[in-house]
Amino acid sequence: MKEFRKFVEQYEKIPNHDWEIISGQFKKHELPKNFNILEQGSICKNLYFLESGLLRYFILKDGNEVTKFFTIAPYCFTSQASFNSKKPANEYIQTIETSIIWETSYEQNKKLLELKSWNSFARKITQEVQFFTEGILEDLQSETAEKRYKKLLNNQPELLQRIPLKYLASFFGVAPQSLSRIRKKLT
Amino acid sequence: MKEFRKFVEQYEKIPNHDWEIISGQFKKHELPKNFNILEQGSICKNLYFLESGLLRYFILKDGNEVTKFFTIAPYCFTSQASFNSKKPANEYIQTIETSIIWETSYEQNKKLLELKSWNSFARKITQEVQFFTEGILEDLQSETAEKRYKKLLNNQPELLQRIPLKYLASFFGVAPQSLSRIRKKLT
Repeated sequence: MKEFRKFVEQYEKIPNHDWEIISGQFKKHELPKNFNILEQGSICKNLYFLESGLLRYFILKDGNEVTKFFTIAPYCFTSQASFNSKKPANEYIQTIETSIIWETSYEQNKKLLELKSWNSFARKITQEVQFFTEGILEDLQSETAEKRYKKLLNNQPELLQRIPLKYLASFFGVAPQSLSRIRKKLT
Repeated sequence: MKEFRKFVEQYEKIPNHDWEIISGQFKKHELPKNFNILEQGSICKNLYFLESGLLRYFILKDGNEVTKFFTIAPYCFTSQASFNSKKPANEYIQTIETSIIWETSYEQNKKLLELKSWNSFARKITQEVQFFTEGILEDLQSETAEKRYKKLLNNQPELLQRIPLKYLASFFGVAPQSLSRIRKKLT
Protein backbone atom coordinates (compact mmCIF):
# COMPACT_ATOMS: atom_id res chain seq x y z
CA MET A 1 0.00 0.00 0.00
CA LYS A 2 2.99 2.29 0.57
CA GLU A 3 3.82 2.07 -3.13
CA PHE A 4 0.28 3.09 -4.01
CA ARG A 5 0.30 6.15 -1.78
CA LYS A 6 3.70 7.17 -3.11
CA PHE A 7 2.32 6.88 -6.62
CA VAL A 8 -0.86 8.85 -5.90
CA GLU A 9 1.08 11.60 -4.15
CA GLN A 10 3.15 12.23 -7.26
CA TYR A 11 -0.09 13.81 -8.52
CA GLU A 12 -1.86 15.08 -5.40
CA LYS A 13 -0.98 15.34 -1.72
CA ILE A 14 -3.36 13.11 0.23
CA PRO A 15 -4.16 14.02 3.87
CA ASN A 16 -3.74 11.06 6.29
CA HIS A 17 -7.44 11.06 7.05
CA ASP A 18 -8.29 10.72 3.34
CA TRP A 19 -5.67 8.03 2.85
CA GLU A 20 -7.25 5.88 5.55
CA ILE A 21 -10.53 6.01 3.66
CA ILE A 22 -8.93 5.41 0.26
CA SER A 23 -6.72 2.52 1.32
CA GLY A 24 -9.68 0.85 3.02
CA GLN A 25 -11.42 0.57 -0.36
CA PHE A 26 -8.72 -1.36 -2.23
CA LYS A 27 -8.09 -5.11 -2.25
CA LYS A 28 -4.81 -6.72 -3.30
CA HIS A 29 -4.45 -9.56 -5.82
CA GLU A 30 -1.44 -11.37 -7.21
CA LEU A 31 -1.95 -12.48 -10.78
CA PRO A 32 0.01 -14.96 -12.91
CA LYS A 33 1.27 -13.95 -16.34
CA ASN A 34 -1.05 -14.18 -19.38
CA PHE A 35 -4.05 -13.69 -17.07
CA ASN A 36 -7.07 -11.85 -18.48
CA ILE A 37 -8.07 -9.18 -16.00
CA LEU A 38 -10.80 -8.17 -18.44
CA GLU A 39 -12.29 -9.86 -21.48
CA GLN A 40 -13.98 -8.23 -24.45
CA GLY A 41 -17.76 -8.36 -23.90
CA SER A 42 -17.53 -8.19 -20.09
CA ILE A 43 -18.22 -5.08 -18.05
CA CYS A 44 -15.14 -3.65 -16.37
CA LYS A 45 -16.35 -3.21 -12.81
CA ASN A 46 -13.10 -2.11 -11.20
CA LEU A 47 -10.50 0.57 -11.10
CA TYR A 48 -6.99 -0.80 -10.51
CA PHE A 49 -3.56 0.17 -9.33
CA LEU A 50 -0.77 -1.91 -10.88
CA GLU A 51 1.85 -2.19 -8.13
CA SER A 52 4.24 -4.44 -10.05
CA GLY A 53 4.23 -6.14 -13.41
CA LEU A 54 3.22 -5.30 -16.93
CA LEU A 55 -0.05 -5.40 -18.90
CA ARG A 56 -1.26 -5.06 -22.42
CA TYR A 57 -4.58 -3.86 -23.80
CA PHE A 58 -5.72 -5.54 -26.99
CA ILE A 59 -8.77 -6.01 -29.19
CA LEU A 60 -9.71 -8.95 -31.39
CA LYS A 61 -10.14 -7.89 -35.02
CA ASP A 62 -11.10 -10.59 -37.52
CA GLY A 63 -9.52 -13.16 -35.21
CA ASN A 64 -6.26 -11.21 -34.87
CA GLU A 65 -5.07 -9.53 -31.70
CA VAL A 66 -4.36 -5.82 -32.12
CA THR A 67 -2.35 -4.43 -29.21
CA LYS A 68 -3.60 -0.95 -28.25
CA PHE A 69 -1.00 -0.12 -25.61
CA PHE A 70 0.95 -1.36 -22.60
CA THR A 71 0.72 -0.40 -18.94
CA ILE A 72 3.87 -0.69 -16.86
CA ALA A 73 3.91 -0.57 -13.04
CA PRO A 74 3.40 1.56 -11.07
CA TYR A 75 0.27 2.93 -12.72
CA CYS A 76 -3.51 3.06 -12.43
CA PHE A 77 -5.69 1.42 -15.04
CA THR A 78 -9.21 0.38 -15.99
CA SER A 79 -11.18 -0.01 -19.18
CA GLN A 80 -12.31 3.57 -19.08
CA ALA A 81 -15.34 3.51 -21.39
CA SER A 82 -16.71 0.28 -19.94
CA PHE A 83 -16.00 1.27 -16.33
CA ASN A 84 -17.74 4.63 -16.64
CA SER A 85 -20.71 3.57 -18.78
CA LYS A 86 -21.15 0.06 -17.30
CA LYS A 87 -21.31 -1.26 -20.86
CA PRO A 88 -19.41 -4.31 -22.16
CA ALA A 89 -15.75 -3.60 -22.90
CA ASN A 90 -14.46 -3.92 -26.44
CA GLU A 91 -10.98 -4.80 -25.24
CA TYR A 92 -8.96 -7.31 -23.25
CA ILE A 93 -6.60 -6.39 -20.43
CA GLN A 94 -3.99 -9.12 -19.92
CA THR A 95 -0.92 -9.52 -17.74
CA ILE A 96 2.35 -9.98 -19.62
CA GLU A 97 4.21 -10.71 -16.36
CA THR A 98 3.25 -11.87 -12.87
CA SER A 99 1.58 -8.76 -11.50
CA ILE A 100 0.37 -7.34 -8.20
CA ILE A 101 -2.78 -5.26 -8.50
CA TRP A 102 -5.07 -3.41 -6.10
CA GLU A 103 -8.71 -3.07 -7.06
CA THR A 104 -11.71 -1.01 -6.05
CA SER A 105 -15.25 -1.17 -7.44
CA TYR A 106 -17.20 1.47 -9.36
CA GLU A 107 -19.38 2.16 -6.32
CA GLN A 108 -16.42 2.41 -3.94
CA ASN A 109 -14.61 4.71 -6.33
CA LYS A 110 -17.72 6.87 -6.64
CA LYS A 111 -17.64 7.35 -2.87
CA LEU A 112 -13.91 8.13 -2.97
CA LEU A 113 -14.55 10.81 -5.61
CA GLU A 114 -16.43 12.72 -2.90
CA LEU A 115 -12.98 13.36 -1.42
CA LYS A 116 -11.46 16.44 -3.01
CA SER A 117 -8.01 14.86 -2.90
CA TRP A 118 -9.10 11.71 -4.75
CA ASN A 119 -11.17 13.71 -7.25
CA SER A 120 -8.14 15.85 -8.07
CA PHE A 121 -5.90 12.79 -8.36
CA ALA A 122 -8.43 11.16 -10.71
CA ARG A 123 -8.61 14.27 -12.87
CA LYS A 124 -4.84 14.59 -13.09
CA ILE A 125 -4.13 10.96 -13.96
CA THR A 126 -6.93 10.95 -16.53
CA GLN A 127 -5.28 13.99 -18.09
CA GLU A 128 -1.98 12.13 -18.20
CA VAL A 129 -3.54 9.03 -19.75
CA GLN A 130 -5.17 11.30 -22.33
CA PHE A 131 -1.76 12.83 -23.02
CA PHE A 132 -0.18 9.37 -23.50
CA THR A 133 -3.02 8.18 -25.74
CA GLU A 134 -2.76 11.30 -27.87
CA GLY A 135 0.97 10.71 -28.20
CA ILE A 136 0.44 7.16 -29.47
CA LEU A 137 -2.25 8.39 -31.86
CA GLU A 138 -0.05 11.17 -33.17
CA ASP A 139 2.89 8.81 -33.72
CA LEU A 140 0.66 6.32 -35.49
CA GLN A 141 -0.74 9.06 -37.74
CA SER A 142 2.60 10.57 -38.65
CA GLU A 143 5.50 8.13 -38.09
CA THR A 144 6.71 4.88 -39.65
CA ALA A 145 6.89 1.72 -37.53
CA GLU A 146 10.69 2.04 -37.56
CA LYS A 147 10.62 5.56 -36.13
CA ARG A 148 8.08 4.54 -33.50
CA TYR A 149 10.27 1.60 -32.50
CA LYS A 150 13.31 3.88 -32.29
CA LYS A 151 11.41 6.29 -30.05
CA LEU A 152 10.42 3.52 -27.65
CA LEU A 153 14.02 2.26 -27.72
CA ASN A 154 15.23 5.69 -26.65
CA ASN A 155 12.54 6.36 -24.05
CA GLN A 156 11.84 2.97 -22.49
CA PRO A 157 14.49 0.47 -23.63
CA GLU A 158 13.72 -1.93 -20.76
CA LEU A 159 10.14 -2.22 -21.99
CA LEU A 160 11.33 -3.64 -25.30
CA GLN A 161 13.11 -6.41 -23.38
CA ARG A 162 10.05 -7.29 -21.35
CA ILE A 163 7.42 -7.41 -24.08
CA PRO A 164 7.27 -10.46 -26.39
CA LEU A 165 8.04 -9.59 -30.02
CA LYS A 166 4.59 -10.60 -31.31
CA TYR A 167 2.84 -8.11 -29.02
CA LEU A 168 5.25 -5.35 -29.96
CA ALA A 169 4.71 -6.12 -33.66
CA SER A 170 0.93 -5.89 -33.30
CA PHE A 171 1.34 -2.59 -31.41
CA PHE A 172 3.47 -1.18 -34.23
CA GLY A 173 1.08 -2.56 -36.82
CA VAL A 174 3.66 -4.70 -38.63
CA ALA A 175 4.32 -8.45 -39.01
CA PRO A 176 6.70 -9.97 -36.41
CA GLN A 177 9.21 -10.65 -39.23
CA SER A 178 9.21 -6.96 -40.19
CA LEU A 179 9.81 -5.96 -36.59
CA SER A 180 12.71 -8.43 -36.38
CA ARG A 181 14.26 -6.74 -39.41
CA ILE A 182 13.78 -3.29 -37.86
CA ARG A 183 15.34 -4.58 -34.64
CA LYS A 184 18.39 -6.00 -36.41
CA LYS A 185 18.85 -2.82 -38.40
CA LEU A 186 18.85 -0.67 -35.26
CA THR A 187 21.22 -2.78 -33.12
CA MET B 1 -23.05 31.89 -21.63
CA LYS B 2 -26.34 29.97 -21.35
CA GLU B 3 -25.06 27.48 -23.91
CA PHE B 4 -21.92 26.99 -21.87
CA ARG B 5 -23.77 26.27 -18.64
CA LYS B 6 -26.13 23.89 -20.44
CA PHE B 7 -23.10 22.07 -21.80
CA VAL B 8 -21.29 21.86 -18.45
CA GLU B 9 -24.43 20.64 -16.72
CA GLN B 10 -24.65 17.65 -19.02
CA TYR B 11 -21.69 16.44 -16.96
CA GLU B 12 -22.15 17.99 -13.55
CA LYS B 13 -24.84 20.04 -11.82
CA ILE B 14 -23.39 23.48 -11.03
CA PRO B 15 -24.82 25.42 -8.08
CA ASN B 16 -25.77 29.03 -8.96
CA HIS B 17 -23.11 30.37 -6.63
CA ASP B 18 -20.40 28.33 -8.39
CA TRP B 19 -21.68 29.33 -11.81
CA GLU B 20 -21.33 33.02 -10.96
CA ILE B 21 -17.67 32.42 -10.18
CA ILE B 22 -17.09 30.22 -13.24
CA SER B 23 -18.82 32.49 -15.74
CA GLY B 24 -16.87 35.48 -14.38
CA GLN B 25 -13.62 33.82 -15.48
CA PHE B 26 -14.43 33.34 -19.18
CA LYS B 27 -14.07 35.85 -22.00
CA LYS B 28 -15.87 35.59 -25.34
CA HIS B 29 -14.22 35.85 -28.77
CA GLU B 30 -15.56 35.55 -32.27
CA LEU B 31 -13.05 34.09 -34.68
CA PRO B 32 -12.98 33.97 -38.48
CA LYS B 33 -12.45 30.70 -40.29
CA ASN B 34 -8.92 29.38 -40.86
CA PHE B 35 -7.75 31.23 -37.76
CA ASN B 36 -4.95 29.67 -35.71
CA ILE B 37 -6.04 29.63 -32.08
CA LEU B 38 -2.75 27.90 -31.30
CA GLU B 39 0.46 27.41 -33.26
CA GLN B 40 3.02 24.66 -32.90
CA GLY B 41 5.87 25.95 -30.72
CA SER B 42 3.67 28.32 -28.69
CA ILE B 43 2.47 27.62 -25.17
CA CYS B 44 -1.26 27.02 -24.94
CA LYS B 45 -2.23 29.35 -22.11
CA ASN B 46 -5.99 28.90 -22.21
CA LEU B 47 -8.80 26.48 -21.72
CA TYR B 48 -11.68 27.06 -24.14
CA PHE B 49 -15.32 26.39 -24.66
CA LEU B 50 -16.36 26.22 -28.32
CA GLU B 51 -19.87 27.64 -28.38
CA SER B 52 -20.33 27.44 -32.15
CA GLY B 53 -18.17 26.42 -35.07
CA LEU B 54 -15.71 23.71 -35.88
CA LEU B 55 -11.97 23.20 -35.29
CA ARG B 56 -9.21 20.89 -36.33
CA TYR B 57 -6.05 19.89 -34.54
CA PHE B 58 -3.06 19.21 -36.78
CA ILE B 59 0.68 18.77 -36.70
CA LEU B 60 3.28 19.61 -39.33
CA LYS B 61 5.26 16.54 -40.35
CA ASP B 62 7.97 17.02 -43.00
CA GLY B 63 6.04 20.02 -44.28
CA ASN B 64 2.73 18.12 -44.49
CA GLU B 65 -0.27 18.78 -42.31
CA VAL B 66 -1.47 15.69 -40.43
CA THR B 67 -4.96 16.19 -38.98
CA LYS B 68 -5.21 14.62 -35.53
CA PHE B 69 -8.89 15.20 -34.90
CA PHE B 70 -11.79 17.64 -35.13
CA THR B 71 -13.72 19.45 -32.40
CA ILE B 72 -17.32 20.33 -33.12
CA ALA B 73 -19.38 22.78 -31.01
CA PRO B 74 -20.47 22.67 -28.27
CA TYR B 75 -17.34 21.29 -26.61
CA CYS B 76 -14.41 22.25 -24.42
CA PHE B 77 -10.88 22.17 -25.77
CA THR B 78 -7.28 23.08 -25.15
CA SER B 79 -3.89 21.69 -26.08
CA GLN B 80 -3.82 19.46 -23.05
CA ALA B 81 -0.12 18.63 -22.76
CA SER B 82 0.99 22.21 -23.41
CA PHE B 83 -1.69 23.76 -21.19
CA ASN B 84 -0.86 21.54 -18.22
CA SER B 85 2.93 21.54 -18.52
CA LYS B 86 3.31 25.12 -19.83
CA LYS B 87 5.59 23.72 -22.53
CA PRO B 88 5.41 24.61 -26.25
CA ALA B 89 2.62 22.77 -28.07
CA ASN B 90 3.47 20.37 -30.85
CA GLU B 91 0.19 21.03 -32.62
CA TYR B 92 -1.93 23.67 -34.26
CA ILE B 93 -5.57 24.36 -33.38
CA GLN B 94 -7.35 26.07 -36.26
CA THR B 95 -10.93 27.11 -36.96
CA ILE B 96 -12.56 25.46 -39.99
CA GLU B 97 -15.62 27.73 -39.69
CA THR B 98 -16.37 31.08 -38.09
CA SER B 99 -16.42 30.16 -34.41
CA ILE B 100 -17.45 31.60 -31.08
CA ILE B 101 -15.17 30.63 -28.21
CA TRP B 102 -14.96 31.41 -24.50
CA GLU B 103 -11.53 31.35 -22.90
CA THR B 104 -10.06 31.24 -19.42
CA SER B 105 -6.39 31.23 -18.44
CA TYR B 106 -4.39 28.50 -16.71
CA GLU B 107 -4.33 30.52 -13.48
CA GLN B 108 -8.05 31.26 -13.57
CA ASN B 109 -8.84 27.61 -14.28
CA LYS B 110 -6.60 26.59 -11.40
CA LYS B 111 -8.72 28.72 -9.09
CA LEU B 112 -11.92 27.27 -10.57
CA LEU B 113 -10.63 23.76 -9.86
CA GLU B 114 -10.92 24.60 -6.18
CA LEU B 115 -14.67 24.34 -6.75
CA LYS B 116 -15.77 20.77 -6.35
CA SER B 117 -18.33 21.19 -9.13
CA TRP B 118 -15.77 22.44 -11.64
CA ASN B 119 -13.20 19.84 -10.57
CA SER B 120 -15.74 17.08 -11.19
CA PHE B 121 -16.75 18.55 -14.54
CA ALA B 122 -13.08 18.74 -15.56
CA ARG B 123 -12.52 15.11 -14.54
CA LYS B 124 -15.57 13.89 -16.44
CA ILE B 125 -14.88 15.74 -19.65
CA THR B 126 -11.23 14.68 -19.60
CA GLN B 127 -12.47 11.10 -19.27
CA GLU B 128 -14.71 11.61 -22.28
CA VAL B 129 -11.92 13.15 -24.36
CA GLN B 130 -9.75 10.19 -23.39
CA PHE B 131 -12.53 7.87 -24.51
CA PHE B 132 -12.83 9.65 -27.89
CA THR B 133 -9.06 9.65 -28.41
CA GLU B 134 -8.85 5.95 -27.61
CA GLY B 135 -11.63 5.31 -30.12
CA ILE B 136 -9.74 7.13 -32.89
CA LEU B 137 -6.54 5.26 -31.95
CA GLU B 138 -8.31 1.91 -31.96
CA ASP B 139 -9.90 2.58 -35.34
CA LEU B 140 -6.60 3.67 -36.79
CA GLN B 141 -4.89 0.54 -35.46
CA SER B 142 -7.51 -1.88 -36.68
CA GLU B 143 -9.63 -0.41 -39.50
CA THR B 144 -9.09 0.61 -43.12
CA ALA B 145 -9.63 4.22 -44.19
CA GLU B 146 -12.81 3.11 -45.97
CA LYS B 147 -14.29 1.56 -42.82
CA ARG B 148 -13.34 4.59 -40.77
CA TYR B 149 -15.00 6.88 -43.32
CA LYS B 150 -18.12 4.70 -43.28
CA LYS B 151 -18.26 4.91 -39.49
CA LEU B 152 -18.09 8.71 -39.53
CA LEU B 153 -20.71 8.74 -42.28
CA ASN B 154 -23.05 6.73 -40.05
CA ASN B 155 -22.34 8.58 -36.82
CA GLN B 156 -21.80 12.20 -37.86
CA PRO B 157 -22.83 12.62 -41.52
CA GLU B 158 -23.16 16.41 -41.19
CA LEU B 159 -19.50 16.60 -40.16
CA LEU B 160 -18.43 15.16 -43.51
CA GLN B 161 -20.26 18.00 -45.24
CA ARG B 162 -18.61 20.67 -43.13
CA ILE B 163 -14.99 19.53 -43.30
CA PRO B 164 -12.98 20.19 -46.50
CA LEU B 165 -11.91 17.01 -48.28
CA LYS B 166 -8.16 17.64 -47.83
CA TYR B 167 -8.49 17.77 -44.04
CA LEU B 168 -10.61 14.64 -43.96
CA ALA B 169 -8.07 12.85 -46.16
CA SER B 170 -5.19 13.77 -43.87
CA PHE B 171 -7.25 12.59 -40.88
CA PHE B 172 -7.87 9.24 -42.55
CA GLY B 173 -4.23 9.03 -43.63
CA VAL B 174 -4.95 8.80 -47.36
CA ALA B 175 -4.46 11.05 -50.39
CA PRO B 176 -7.43 13.34 -51.27
CA GLN B 177 -7.88 11.37 -54.53
CA SER B 178 -8.21 8.11 -52.60
CA LEU B 179 -10.80 9.65 -50.31
CA SER B 180 -12.74 10.90 -53.34
CA ARG B 181 -12.79 7.33 -54.66
CA ILE B 182 -14.01 6.01 -51.28
CA ARG B 183 -16.68 8.73 -51.22
CA LYS B 184 -17.94 7.88 -54.71
CA LYS B 185 -18.01 4.18 -53.89
CA LEU B 186 -20.12 4.75 -50.78
CA THR B 187 -22.68 7.13 -52.26
